[in-house]
Amino acid sequence: MRYAVLGTGMVGQALARKLRALGHEVAMGAREMGNEKARAFAAETGGEAMDFARAARFGDVVINATSGAHALEALNQAGAENLAGKVLIDISNALDFSQKPPVLSLANTDSLGEAIQRAFPEALVVKTLCTVNANVMVDPARLPGEHVIFLSGNDADAKKSVREMLAGFGWREIIDLGPIESARAQEMMMPMWLRLWGHLGTLDFNWMLTRRSD
Amino acid sequence: MRYAVLGTGMVGQALARKLRALGHEVAMGAREMGNEKARAFAAETGGEAMDFARAARFGDVVINATSGAHALEALNQAGAENLAGKVLIDISNALDFSQKPPVLSLANTDSLGEAIQRAFPEALVVKTLCTVNANVMVDPARLPGEHVIFLSGNDADAKKSVREMLAGFGWREIIDLGPIESARAQEMMMPMWLRLWGHLGTLDFNWMLTRRSD
Repeated sequence: MRYAVLGTGMVGQALARKLRALGHEVAMGAREMGNEKARAFAAETGGEAMDFARAARFGDVVINATSGAHALEALNQAGAENLAGKVLIDISNALDFSQKPPVLSLANTDSLGEAIQRAFPEALVVKTLCTVNANVMVDPARLPGEHVIFLSGNDADAKKSVREMLAGFGWREIIDLGPIESARAQEMMMPMWLRLWGHLGTLDFNWMLTRRSD
Repeated sequence: MRYAVLGTGMVGQALARKLRALGHEVAMGAREMGNEKARAFAAETGGEAMDFARAARFGDVVINATSGAHALEALNQAGAENLAGKVLIDISNALDFSQKPPVLSLANTDSLGEAIQRAFPEALVVKTLCTVNANVMVDPARLPGEHVIFLSGNDADAKKSVREMLAGFGWREIIDLGPIESARAQEMMMPMWLRLWGHLGTLDFNWMLTRRSD
């Protein structure tokens, strides 16, 4: 499978390197050709360094790992024609850091996942991985227990493909929340995640579920 | 300790009956004197049935167990003078059921917990218990594992008092998220809770946390 990872930050690096380590062809997309972090990724892993549009064209699956504030702009640069008909995995959080504590720029009656699906109606958007730190995303086994990750999206085949990618990372408890509107539920976990980061003093945590067994 | 439980629905009944079972004096407050559900509570448990204002006057601790949409109105009926200086536990969720799926009437940049604290600045507001079903609230042992409940509030002594009440219910993992602004984090879990209800097919669930141990 050919993956395009848009974004060169911690999340993009973690995902692109994990996908390479699993043997996939991976292009890291940056705003501009020649981006140093994308070139470092390519040099160190044998992957590709491209701009957003070339990377999106390259990928069978496109992963938006840009910051939430710049996600729509980055995807516009990637180009609707390069996203059409493809699985578009959105893992970004629309955090507005101008307020303390940070708030979401979309919430409650909308979500970034939905906004991306509206902006690119021919892409098969799946929201996932936005509820954990980058290290946990690509290596869930670093935490004990059957902890959970979520899927939201309108296309069953697209969610199946993302589920397989997540299983490849080691995820076992993958919960399909429903259509892309359920991205709200995932994205609205962020304020709690930020508070728990403060409380626990680590980014290395996640949720498990308990339920009554009878 | 004398508790006032404002609200006669499932949540109010569960809390008032649990507090009575633990030996506390409890008044259930209703919009009007003579409310049948409040009278049934009183008759069956030896507690008191009152209107909101009388109940709030009676309680050393006042629990808002009304529906989120009516919380501020109910507390206005209870009267600022009857809430001043008291621990005011808010467990309501500001759900707007006119939309499907339901949305929050306050979220992201505000919360019902904060709105109540602003409206009643002399009350010591503590947000808690809004992340679980009524049965789990008062009997956490019905679920296996070290599952969690949260506290948000500005007053350390008030949070200590609420922590003791929760410990009396059987809660062991009680996480202090910070000041009342952190009520946003609790309240914004509701969309995920609703999705998980659909996914799991039960109300009898809750969150546990896992973290890296090294």
